[in-house]
Amino acid sequence: MFDQQLAHKATENLKRLREKKPLIHNITNYVVMNYTANALLACGASPVMAHAQEEVEEMVSFAGALVLNIGTLTPYWIDSMVKAGKRANELNTPIILDPVGSGATKLRTDSAKRLLDELSIRVVRGNASEVLSLAHKDSRTKGVDSIHSVDDAADAALTLSRELNTTLAITGAVDLVTDGKEIHRVSNGHELMGFVTGTGCTATVIIGAFLAVDDNPLTATTTALAYFGLAGEKAATKASAPGSFQVGLLDALYSIEEKQMQEGAKIQIQ
Amino acid sequence: MFDQQLAHKATENLKRLREKKPLIHNITNYVVMNYTANALLACGASPVMAHAQEEVEEMVSFAGALVLNIGTLTPYWIDSMVKAGKRANELNTPIILDPVGSGATKLRTDSAKRLLDELSIRVVRGNASEVLSLAHKDSRTKGVDSIHSVDDAADAALTLSRELNTTLAITGAVDLVTDGKEIHRVSNGHELMGFVTGTGCTATVIIGAFLAVDDNPLTATTTALAYFGLAGEKAATKASAPGSFQVGLLDALYSIEEKQMQEGAKIQIQ
Amino acid sequence: MFDQQLAHKATENLKRLREKKPLIHNITNYVVMNYTANALLACGASPVMAHAQEEVEEMVSFAGALVLNIGTLTPYWIDSMVKAGKRANELNTPIILDPVGSGATKLRTDSAKRLLDELSIRVVRGNASEVLSLAHKDSRTKGVDSIHSVDDAADAALTLSRELNTTLAITGAVDLVTDGKEIHRVSNGHELMGFVTGTGCTATVIIGAFLAVDDNPLTATTTALAYFGLAGEKAATKASAPGSFQVGLLDALYSIEEKQMQEGAKIQIQ
Repeated sequence: MFDQQLAHKATENLKRLREKKPLIHNITNYVVMNYTANALLACGASPVMAHAQEEVEEMVSFAGALVLNIGTLTPYWIDSMVKAGKRANELNTPIILDPVGSGATKLRTDSAKRLLDELSIRVVRGNASEVLSLAHKDSRTKGVDSIHSVDDAADAALTLSRELNTTLAITGAVDLVTDGKEIHRVSNGHELMGFVTGTGCTATVIIGAFLAVDDNPLTATTTALAYFGLAGEKAATKASAPGSFQVGLLDALYSIEEKQMQEGAKIQIQ
Repeated sequence: MFDQQLAHKATENLKRLREKKPLIHNITNYVVMNYTANALLACGASPVMAHAQEEVEEMVSFAGALVLNIGTLTPYWIDSMVKAGKRANELNTPIILDPVGSGATKLRTDSAKRLLDELSIRVVRGNASEVLSLAHKDSRTKGVDSIHSVDDAADAALTLSRELNTTLAITGAVDLVTDGKEIHRVSNGHELMGFVTGTGCTATVIIGAFLAVDDNPLTATTTALAYFGLAGEKAATKASAPGSFQVGLLDALYSIEEKQMQEGAKIQIQ
Repeated sequence: MFDQQLAHKATENLKRLREKKPLIHNITNYVVMNYTANALLACGASPVMAHAQEEVEEMVSFAGALVLNIGTLTPYWIDSMVKAGKRANELNTPIILDPVGSGATKLRTDSAKRLLDELSIRVVRGNASEVLSLAHKDSRTKGVDSIHSVDDAADAALTLSRELNTTLAITGAVDLVTDGKEIHRVSNGHELMGFVTGTGCTATVIIGAFLAVDDNPLTATTTALAYFGLAGEKAATKASAPGSFQVGLLDALYSIEEKQMQEGAKIQIQ
């Protein structure tokens, strides 16, 4: 039922991540900085948070990936993201964008679109409404309200992925990932993840870490989401409320063994 | 001994909160953002942190309540609070203010007073010295140093509540809440709460969430404090040191059942 | 093998800290604010985070120590640090600097050097590359790449300590502390500390708290590091992964008894 080659790829990526310990440069929101830094450490990566315009170009030059997250954005921070992102593009360092709240306010939608316009972004991860808000006005992509089935969502994601020329990860009970050609679905995860702030942002940084060790954005994203979701499942075997679940999730990211990854990944190719 | 109607109201408010899942817009300090977001999620509410002047008016228009907290203030952030607050007032969305450190520095005292002057604030929550620092220079409210008994404190709070035209919550070993007419006292809580940073700020956001489902600021505040204090008591049955207590407090907010709320609320009407 | 007088001093300092509960003013990075505030509370100190230029001079005047940490610096924040630091110097309030990432970007190196130039700093704590990056261009201090043995590191630290006229704490598997005259080594600690973000920053705030109760920067630093490392050892007896270790570390800071401190401190005088 689940793809064994992709489960194997997940295991390989996790192994490479723990060996290479890539530096991940984050320009992200205040709410999740501590938790996503800890998640990156638990995965085996090395986090740095830096947003000053005087240093972001220098800092990103040491990084294996750049994570941009607009959760508590101001125009200054978006300018920093553009600056770091342009340098990352020059160095061919992968960028992942988390358009937190895009669609909710004009500043968020405009900022996310600006980042997509000015930078070459390898992966965008968000929930359905965030991701679909990125479509151009005159685009063929249907809005969130017109999606009536899983197939509608997949069609919209495929179209939008081609339009934006990036890999899209729409996360939810089942995650949908597409590079505009193939569609993968990941069914790992646990409902308690919705009761911990920043689990979406944490999925994003883990994809960022996997992009630093896997050049294929589709498989990097899919395997990262399987790994993170599996950590959620593992945490839920010990915790039944969000405080201890938040702690257990970090423990699980650190503790998942390669064999567990191989057996636990729930990735399907559509 | 404890008021049974208010215990019932606490149970009702908690139930409504978990059903309605109101969005709570926070303009707050860096220290507690992660923890108060998690506390709101554990309660059943939906948190958003947003402070950019370009978006706060739009963001607050989706919210059931606005939380203003000056813990790591700068003038920019206070301006954002005024902007969001004015829109909240137009929409009759309740605002709660946490005047962290008011009385300690001129910037904090002046900023808290400015927010009270320019906005209609439904509830202010702080410790005794923070709340009493809000009195006008020529006010009849006695300062913290002249309070020699619980009755003195109650008198000062009543006077100040009328003067500022807002409900006041002075939290401590026993919380005192007054709308300028009635006085309620809440004796739920545990001393380990004083060893976790931001438990005051967390009390504030929970009051904010209760304000989104209860139009009466006095009962919303009192019942929220009983719920939060009860969570502290529950957490202390499992944890005896601040790290695990901080985690257990989130677990307890999530796990408290209606029956426990009804039986555990310790609210008295003076 | 380990110095018993310094173990006794550690016990004494911890006792004084818990009795005096000094206010520690932090101008620090976003990533660790919550955790270091909680660590200070768990130690018995009282944390405040404040960075607005309108209030830092007033705030620091209440403090027993000032902690400066450049982890998510911008020029505005560095200016605030200078402002607070000058006032601290006037009041003879001890300052500790954590030059996070100095050596990695020009902004960080220049900012750390500016703070050392403009302020009288009692202690600097960092890893070897951060601390050695602070040497003047024409200094006799050897760079990190030319250090080939533990003795080389000690020589470089001694020279640099005299050059910068401050006590240096270079933390790692074994911590090296020198005031330019004596060298102390602390071997407390646990490898899981490297998997929790901000444990270096937490060591810094605990040294800050000890500086508030011990006028000797060498013994304040050494005993604080022994205490923090011992907390790590204690946490590791219950936790084997970073999420629960992060929580357990706070529990241990709170719970360590004087007898445990006396018996557990691993400090050596070179």
